[in-house]
Amino acid sequence: MTTALFDTSSPAIDFWFDFGSNYSYLSVMRIEAQAARHHVKIRWQPFLLGPVFQALGFETSPFVLQKEKGEYVWQDMARQCGKYALPWRRPSAFPRRALLPLRVAMLGADEPWIGAFCRGIMRLNFAQDREIDSPEAVSEVLMQQGLPAQSIIADALADANKLALREQTERARAKGVFGAPTFFVGAEMFWGNDRLDDALACAAGLPLAGN
Amino acid sequence: MTTALFDTSSPAIDFWFDFGSNYSYLSVMRIEAQAARHHVKIRWQPFLLGPVFQALGFETSPFVLQKEKGEYVWQDMARQCGKYALPWRRPSAFPRRALLPLRVAMLGADEPWIGAFCRGIMRLNFAQDREIDSPEAVSEVLMQQGLPAQSIIADALADANKLALREQTERARAKGVFGAPTFFVGAEMFWGNDRLDDALACAAGLPLAGN
Repeated sequence: MTTALFDTSSPAIDFWFDFGSNYSYLSVMRIEAQAARHHVKIRWQPFLLGPVFQALGFETSPFVLQKEKGEYVWQDMARQCGKYALPWRRPSAFPRRALLPLRVAMLGADEPWIGAFCRGIMRLNFAQDREIDSPEAVSEVLMQQGLPAQSIIADALADANKLALREQTERARAKGVFGAPTFFVGAEMFWGNDRLDDALACAAGLPLAGN
Repeated sequence: MTTALFDTSSPAIDFWFDFGSNYSYLSVMRIEAQAARHHVKIRWQPFLLGPVFQALGFETSPFVLQKEKGEYVWQDMARQCGKYALPWRRPSAFPRRALLPLRVAMLGADEPWIGAFCRGIMRLNFAQDREIDSPEAVSEVLMQQGLPAQSIIADALADANKLALREQTERARAKGVFGAPTFFVGAEMFWGNDRLDDALACAAGLPLAGN
């Protein structure tokens, strides 16, 4: 009988996000390139941020509920997008409902197209100011990847997958997630795009880089 | 008659902080070294975060009011202090009242000792888990700098200086400050220790550094 003393699996990061979340936009656009640099595997964990906020007593995004913070956030987003060389247009509706694309992301979380799909949906919301919770929008992004949009959407709408997304959202709450994006490396939680680099360094076993 | 087309003054950053604020601790400890690297002048802007929170409808710190976020914050602080090589002990009382040291900081904002004084107070709170709102604590820090503690405290308790701190807090609200630390470079607001580097780059006229 042997006991596993060391975790020999390759380093991984759990990436919890919602397509309606503006700071999730920054991380969705950056994470594949950054994780590859650190040789860290990404486990995509789409979830519904709305029910998490509601369970915490917030009717909607704190950026909507808190006027001062809300005004700041859009200045900050414009600057952060400049910093990361990402396209940016302030969404005219916020936070956008994202149930269908999240169901597709749930279905495709382990597929090779997940990263490109997520970036495509995020671009619609935060670079093109378009609605994302429609079969048309989701199909457009899937087809850009050369994927069979109709059958993927049908699978995403199956009861088992709908249930999987609800359970995923419950799991987020149980893990203490209170916003998005949130990263986990083992049991260590990192909140916000500002912690993506720290989380990846942690996953890769490197010291966090300060100055 | 000439018109000033360019602002020829040296670059400056306004640094709004409260000694009770844990993320202000990180910035207080880091800002002088970082600003010197960028040749940016610091304008120290102590203020009372409590009344700002209350005006926004929060009885106390969101880290106390929101259990999930509160639990996370202490994990994050330990990691951030490791990252910046700062001493850290989780304060057994939070947020600590800091009226007297803030009055002294108000009085001394333009003095050469302001940085060392602020770091000394912050160390008591976040490295030594000690109360900071007493003449003894404040004297100890002032005397460590070889300063005449008694006369500085007497001046800090003069009506004009008490009023100055109240007006300063009103000014924070008027500028849209909703948390601490907050930095301003001209009219541009940057919130949180995570934005200190961006704010300094902005003040120095450099592009923000992303990856």
